Amino acid sequence: MQVGLLKRIFEDYKSGRLSLDDAIKELKTLPYRDLGFARVDNHRPLRKGYPEVIFGQGKTKEQLLRIIDELISKGSDAIVTRTDATVYRHIKRSYRDAVFNKEARMIVIRKDKSEIKKTGLILVVSAGTSDIPVAEEAAFTAEIFGNKVERLYDVGVAGIHRLFDRIDLLMSANVIIVVAGMEGALPSVVGGLVEGPVIAVPTSVGYGASFNGVTALLAMLNSCSSNVAVVNIDNGFGAGYLASIINRK
Amino acid sequence: MQVGLLKRIFEDYKSGRLSLDDAIKELKTLPYRDLGFARVDNHRPLRKGYPEVIFGQGKTKEQLLRIIDELISKGSDAIVTRTDATVYRHIKRSYRDAVFNKEARMIVIRKDKSEIKKTGLILVVSAGTSDIPVAEEAAFTAEIFGNKVERLYDVGVAGIHRLFDRIDLLMSANVIIVVAGMEGALPSVVGGLVEGPVIAVPTSVGYGASFNGVTALLAMLNSCSSNVAVVNIDNGFGAGYLASIINRK
Amino acid sequence: MQVGLLKRIFEDYKSGRLSLDDAIKELKTLPYRDLGFARVDNHRPLRKGYPEVIFGQGKTKEQLLRIIDELISKGSDAIVTRTDATVYRHIKRSYRDAVFNKEARMIVIRKDKSEIKKTGLILVVSAGTSDIPVAEEAAFTAEIFGNKVERLYDVGVAGIHRLFDRIDLLMSANVIIVVAGMEGALPSVVGGLVEGPVIAVPTSVGYGASFNGVTALLAMLNSCSSNVAVVNIDNGFGAGYLASIINRK
Amino acid sequence: MQVGLLKRIFEDYKSGRLSLDDAIKELKTLPYRDLGFARVDNHRPLRKGYPEVIFGQGKTKEQLLRIIDELISKGSDAIVTRTDATVYRHIKRSYRDAVFNKEARMIVIRKDKSEIKKTGLILVVSAGTSDIPVAEEAAFTAEIFGNKVERLYDVGVAGIHRLFDRIDLLMSANVIIVVAGMEGALPSVVGGLVEGPVIAVPTSVGYGASFNGVTALLAMLNSCSSNVAVVNIDNGFGAGYLASIINRK
Amino acid sequence: MQVGLLKRIFEDYKSGRLSLDDAIKELKTLPYRDLGFARVDNHRPLRKGYPEVIFGQGKTKEQLLRIIDELISKGSDAIVTRTDATVYRHIKRSYRDAVFNKEARMIVIRKDKSEIKKTGLILVVSAGTSDIPVAEEAAFTAEIFGNKVERLYDVGVAGIHRLFDRIDLLMSANVIIVVAGMEGALPSVVGGLVEGPVIAVPTSVGYGASFNGVTALLAMLNSCSSNVAVVNIDNGFGAGYLASIINRK
Amino acid sequence: MQVGLLKRIFEDYKSGRLSLDDAIKELKTLPYRDLGFARVDNHRPLRKGYPEVIFGQGKTKEQLLRIIDELISKGSDAIVTRTDATVYRHIKRSYRDAVFNKEARMIVIRKDKSEIKKTGLILVVSAGTSDIPVAEEAAFTAEIFGNKVERLYDVGVAGIHRLFDRIDLLMSANVIIVVAGMEGALPSVVGGLVEGPVIAVPTSVGYGASFNGVTALLAMLNSCSSNVAVVNIDNGFGAGYLASIINRK
Amino acid sequence: MQVGLLKRIFEDYKSGRLSLDDAIKELKTLPYRDLGFARVDNHRPLRKGYPEVIFGQGKTKEQLLRIIDELISKGSDAIVTRTDATVYRHIKRSYRDAVFNKEARMIVIRKDKSEIKKTGLILVVSAGTSDIPVAEEAAFTAEIFGNKVERLYDVGVAGIHRLFDRIDLLMSANVIIVVAGMEGALPSVVGGLVEGPVIAVPTSVGYGASFNGVTALLAMLNSCSSNVAVVNIDNGFGAGYLASIINRK
Amino acid sequence: MQVGLLKRIFEDYKSGRLSLDDAIKELKTLPYRDLGFARVDNHRPLRKGYPEVIFGQGKTKEQLLRIIDELISKGSDAIVTRTDATVYRHIKRSYRDAVFNKEARMIVIRKDKSEIKKTGLILVVSAGTSDIPVAEEAAFTAEIFGNKVERLYDVGVAGIHRLFDRIDLLMSANVIIVVAGMEGALPSVVGGLVEGPVIAVPTSVGYGASFNGVTALLAMLNSCSSNVAVVNIDNGFGAGYLASIINRK
Repeated sequence: MQVGLLKRIFEDYKSGRLSLDDAIKELKTLPYRDLGFARVDNHRPLRKGYPEVIFGQGKTKEQLLRIIDELISKGSDAIVTRTDATVYRHIKRSYRDAVFNKEARMIVIRKDKSEIKKTGLILVVSAGTSDIPVAEEAAFTAEIFGNKVERLYDVGVAGIHRLFDRIDLLMSANVIIVVAGMEGALPSVVGGLVEGPVIAVPTSVGYGASFNGVTALLAMLNSCSSNVAVVNIDNGFGAGYLASIINRK
Repeated sequence: MQVGLLKRIFEDYKSGRLSLDDAIKELKTLPYRDLGFARVDNHRPLRKGYPEVIFGQGKTKEQLLRIIDELISKGSDAIVTRTDATVYRHIKRSYRDAVFNKEARMIVIRKDKSEIKKTGLILVVSAGTSDIPVAEEAAFTAEIFGNKVERLYDVGVAGIHRLFDRIDLLMSANVIIVVAGMEGALPSVVGGLVEGPVIAVPTSVGYGASFNGVTALLAMLNSCSSNVAVVNIDNGFGAGYLASIINRK
Repeated sequence: MQVGLLKRIFEDYKSGRLSLDDAIKELKTLPYRDLGFARVDNHRPLRKGYPEVIFGQGKTKEQLLRIIDELISKGSDAIVTRTDATVYRHIKRSYRDAVFNKEARMIVIRKDKSEIKKTGLILVVSAGTSDIPVAEEAAFTAEIFGNKVERLYDVGVAGIHRLFDRIDLLMSANVIIVVAGMEGALPSVVGGLVEGPVIAVPTSVGYGASFNGVTALLAMLNSCSSNVAVVNIDNGFGAGYLASIINRK
Repeated sequence: MQVGLLKRIFEDYKSGRLSLDDAIKELKTLPYRDLGFARVDNHRPLRKGYPEVIFGQGKTKEQLLRIIDELISKGSDAIVTRTDATVYRHIKRSYRDAVFNKEARMIVIRKDKSEIKKTGLILVVSAGTSDIPVAEEAAFTAEIFGNKVERLYDVGVAGIHRLFDRIDLLMSANVIIVVAGMEGALPSVVGGLVEGPVIAVPTSVGYGASFNGVTALLAMLNSCSSNVAVVNIDNGFGAGYLASIINRK
Repeated sequence: MQVGLLKRIFEDYKSGRLSLDDAIKELKTLPYRDLGFARVDNHRPLRKGYPEVIFGQGKTKEQLLRIIDELISKGSDAIVTRTDATVYRHIKRSYRDAVFNKEARMIVIRKDKSEIKKTGLILVVSAGTSDIPVAEEAAFTAEIFGNKVERLYDVGVAGIHRLFDRIDLLMSANVIIVVAGMEGALPSVVGGLVEGPVIAVPTSVGYGASFNGVTALLAMLNSCSSNVAVVNIDNGFGAGYLASIINRK
Repeated sequence: MQVGLLKRIFEDYKSGRLSLDDAIKELKTLPYRDLGFARVDNHRPLRKGYPEVIFGQGKTKEQLLRIIDELISKGSDAIVTRTDATVYRHIKRSYRDAVFNKEARMIVIRKDKSEIKKTGLILVVSAGTSDIPVAEEAAFTAEIFGNKVERLYDVGVAGIHRLFDRIDLLMSANVIIVVAGMEGALPSVVGGLVEGPVIAVPTSVGYGASFNGVTALLAMLNSCSSNVAVVNIDNGFGAGYLASIINRK
Repeated sequence: MQVGLLKRIFEDYKSGRLSLDDAIKELKTLPYRDLGFARVDNHRPLRKGYPEVIFGQGKTKEQLLRIIDELISKGSDAIVTRTDATVYRHIKRSYRDAVFNKEARMIVIRKDKSEIKKTGLILVVSAGTSDIPVAEEAAFTAEIFGNKVERLYDVGVAGIHRLFDRIDLLMSANVIIVVAGMEGALPSVVGGLVEGPVIAVPTSVGYGASFNGVTALLAMLNSCSSNVAVVNIDNGFGAGYLASIINRK
Repeated sequence: MQVGLLKRIFEDYKSGRLSLDDAIKELKTLPYRDLGFARVDNHRPLRKGYPEVIFGQGKTKEQLLRIIDELISKGSDAIVTRTDATVYRHIKRSYRDAVFNKEARMIVIRKDKSEIKKTGLILVVSAGTSDIPVAEEAAFTAEIFGNKVERLYDVGVAGIHRLFDRIDLLMSANVIIVVAGMEGALPSVVGGLVEGPVIAVPTSVGYGASFNGVTALLAMLNSCSSNVAVVNIDNGFGAGYLASIINRK
């Protein structure tokens, strides 16, 4: 509740600058955010220098451009996830400084170029080469939000020595995102090696009884390492965003 | 790799204090943790003043006491989760300072009494009264690990004004654990209200198509709030532990 | 049983205008609805000024036109759901007054133009922009059946303040249809805010563990708000129709 | 927003009975319900003459009595669902006027005895004799909330003539609740016979591939009758409550 | 075991027409069917005047023609299920007398034209118009195997009076095949009306929680009518074949 | 439609024995069964010498006795399925001629003692010894309904030679009921050996991924033998009843 | 086909020692196993010195003793799996040399005491202490069948260094059985470390989304290590038996 | 730990050829494989004369060629699974000696041509013609790894005599791979006929309730034959590789 504003209304009423009805009306028509409810708006922090995020999958390039136009016109930046080069070329015509990360399948339009503002390291680990698009979505998202990010890809449990070769890197990270499909075992192994939080991202990589990522998801939820939390299948953006706000702490 | 120790071995060999065979032997018999692999042991941090954790469900009181005896004899503290008063009475006879948290269904035996060492607040929010045992497991766990913890219980989405009454508390937390069964909607609502990380714990509370917590689990994994990560059904301990290591950052 | 018709048969028999055999035969060949079983025909109410409904998905434009021709030739009106502009252009050639609602993906051909006959308000609420086609199917259906309809779109639980801004609208509705995909939490929140019946429509919007709407469906079935009932995934028509008959009461 | 109260605060401030700080403070400490948010409280309508509802399953008789004590001390009435005779005898000692409906497995304690206040008929239809407890929970709930209720039990689709014998009863109902386990076909058949809303309640009655009510639930969600909406498995209370608020319209 | 043949071998050996080695060899090389195991060959009855059956789905027209060529060259007739007009035109060039049933999606090539040899009636009932391809597959299959077949289509439970209009037809059938998607309720209703066996065929018709026929399948397995047995989703051929061998009894 | 009765009404009206109103009234009040609807009652054939069937599971011995009393008082016989010796002793006191089949877990009370009236053989085949209770339920049911029944137990596919030893028995059966748990493979093998209809009964025998019979159920539905139809898990009664009506043909 | 026997029959016929009819009869009455079909009997190899196996779960001690009596009377040995001390005490009275392995929950009665006959090593690895009963069932089974067996327990992936400490043991094994519940990741890690075959046994250990071993099962089926094959949940016996026959090669 | 190397480092340090820092550094930079961890690298054995394996599905021909280039440049051979003729033509241009097995959908590039080095027979059995691609993947894989392989195709349980005709072949195999879709019964039958290990491969062949191979998978996991282990749906390569390492024993 903005005490200053409230005091002004009371004083204006007392002084006669506001009738009683007008005072009540002003109180009623105060935006909810001025009545102590302002912080409900969880989008505000994102808008402050952070781009807005648009889920690109299933939207046409025209639809995406129209949404971007709206965001930019409001002074916001814009991120599009799950997109491709065709969309990028369409958007590039209107927004010359749009950046396309092909592997992450993301487009970013922002005024302030990405620069590392946070000190902790976010490490993105992935099991197989097919998991890389989701891993890149996570890594690039974390970079956009100003984090220092390292990648450690293709270190699946079938050749676990590749993971142990980089144990120092694992231990130097503030937050680790582990991306894996198939049996989804990697987050448990990584979680057992480090002390910090591990965000597990199951991917839809696999076939047969992988059920488009359900097996990896279930395995991660049942991790015997207690420092593992899980996000939705293929949700690289969510993992990158969550790692970012943990790293901010 | 403990360089100091290695140097000492080399120098002792050079100086003749160690024969070559003894030097090699000492190198070989160094605990693996001294050979660069030491940090693999993820239990070490827990053991440093932190109690060991025993999943009590399905174990007899005799089995539990025997495991505790082992831990204590090694100088470790001990936590038992998913336990009850009968077990507690049995253990109490041997360990006078054992503490039982009935709602959390946990027993703790430790030398250093719990005291708050970390500054950030961990808030534990639960939807219904039936979710409280899991919420208490999370809250008590976080307390054991030295965190400042607040509880906000029975604020389910069907009476969401109860949640909004405490919006200042929500916003002052460093990490929020949200515990809910049935439709599992609360983490999404809380996640939309705050900027920090939300750890969602589905509970097996419900009936019919709640499928012992599966519905809540799925709902949480599909949260439209990007700051939500999920742990296993009824995994209060995991949520408390994870919140603790995030809060430590 | 149409007493008038029956009396006429009896009298015609008595007067000799009908032989006994012809009387019996006429009785037998009366449409079943004239033999006391008429009320079984649940289509009758629909046909009285209401258009017939055709599920358009998976039918060719030729098939749809043929079915429409049949309906119109019987004096019925016609609604096609799950259709598109290509079908519409095909039908438009034969039925000049066919109306196409692009967002609702519906075509309507009727003699009496839609006009509001019922006093109560049906409010259609949707969580995300991707849920709008289903929401529009519900809203347009309710309009076709003569209801006053308002829309409140894009008020998902991650930004729940947008919902609270319109709490007066919520409370003024006679029946509320809530359309949501992903975690399907919105019906529970809306159900907790109002006293009247809420019809929840899960949508197939989402990815990964949303399982094409199953997660939303389960969440809605487990709603902790007791005024929520659920229809099939993406069944906007059913929700609109059901709201209409509740509003008629 | 309680305008009267607000006006009083403004006037007291103006007149000097309240300092500016006290006026602001009073504004701040107004219960949220006095700040325009009051209608959020969905429990209020229930409490007005309606008993509070407690899910009895899994609670001890001592816990239930304690919750009832709290409710009664606040002036509320109380309903316990999913309970039994043992609990009833325990509660009866404290509350002499507690009423136990054995078939519905419900206990009710209320000041105003149940009397029919609403004119429309709620009809509860059930498929088999094993479905009766859930059907009775629905019927008794609707009666508690002041509705005229009729029962039509054991009219499953395998002997569908029993249903047709009572077609007049079906057609005279304002709302119909249909309770069925096994293949869950009855709501579709009833929905095809009547024009009004049908609330389908799947029950966990069956064996093998009935999966404790999942089959009946799925069948009801896929009903080809568009006037059918579904609640959770065995949720007789929800159906009775929902029918009641529809009948109130 | 063909005693005559065995006796001949023994006698030929005794008479010197066969050496001992040749006698043993002839015994060994007797087709397994001559050694008492002949009736194992379940294809024999089918081949006697009945066409062989090829599952056409997923096979190219070239592959199908090649399989047909093989069958015909062996003197067998041929049925192709799950096929279309394109395949038919390809096959027609080689087999002028190939018959295509477009609705059943089947091609038949046979020497003896279909004629009714069995006296009992097989009735094929279907719920909706979308179920007709599966129903036709069943009906046409039964016709090919020499049965008298009647169709009763579009008599779903939402308009159950259409079914009752034809109750005489239902009761005159020796075996009834009931084809239904969505909630799969029709077999239970039909099963309750007749005394004979009902073969239920779930179809993949429906959307959302119909799960491509799983809901209908489960409903049929849980039928409260004890004269209902179930085949796989969309398995019209199996139902037609099974009805045929029951009708043969 | 009973033409005779209708004619009488017309004639009585014409002759003046019935007023027009009374004629109409009589027409209206004809029991539905007199209007061509009589044969809807599917219980009638069962009651003609056949006992009524009560699902015993989950019912107390007192409840079962009460239901039996009702049936017997109406002149019906009675079968109880899924029952045990305790129930039997309770019922025996009232009904001296009650027969208990311990393995089939069934009680039968009937006037006409079981005697074989049908010529065809029903063969009941089971895979393992644990499947015998379900197999016996099927076999005993078929015997009660007057069939000649043979048993062939413990011939599972892991020792398939035991099945082949009895191939003559398999081939002499008119209908075969195959009962199997675990992988549910036996009906396919049997179906491949015989020409007649096979009714497959999955049992809940197994552990782990047998999912209480779901695996066997699915395997049976996917049988590559086209003469196999399936009933619900553990539904021995249904299989026996269905085999009986097929054998009656 | 036993040529020697056949020749004897032919010669006896030729020499007149057998009439033609007797020769044919002898041919017919040869046990199927003498007609080339003998090796179908897969139980024979087991019976040669190997005990028969009885699944003890769900059988009473009396039933088990009766089955054992039968086996012993036929000269076979006997193994009971999934049993306990109560059963053992009962059996011990009749069979003094019965051996009970409490952890493996198995009873063995055999003439030849277990001795190692095979040279290769079978290693049984388990993830957690709760998996030990299943691991012991596998290990003890392999021992009974004459294998050299080593155990490596409690080496789950959360503390993977414990596994690496014993890498020499892993590499010296001929076959490795890996037993794990929860996320089931251990077989993938072990499979990546060794060259030989790995038999993965999922256990029902876990809670929540472990679904009684389904998660572990799925994870193991999706192993990225190609040398992993899987048996049913908790099937320690199967794994031990299969390892034994692989080790025999 | 390579003692020789370690001694050399110590001695070089003592003799002054290495400074202390350099000695420590050399110790640190020893490849992990020289520190006792070398055998972790499970890829080494494969690379010794065995080709590397690339999962071709979902990769473009350009991507596949690039991966092959890398492998070949490292001196490895290459296998591509799940590929087709288009990819082959692309690769053929660069690698003239690339071999394409169309049915197995595999490409192999290797220096040493395949020749049989192992004496035991691997038999690949398949149920239906649609299972052949997966069976060929298994058979061809086993051939590439130097095994003698026989095929026995189209011997499904519906015509089980075809299997018994080849019982000698079944019994002569060292390892049997059984490939089946639909009800997945064949591995149980084969497992009951032979003594050796059976590797079961479920295929996605089937429709309706086959759920893309899940039914076959479950049936195989529940095999009553204890010598059956299972790999993922359609995982022909894994079965061939596993059979190969078992055959190597």
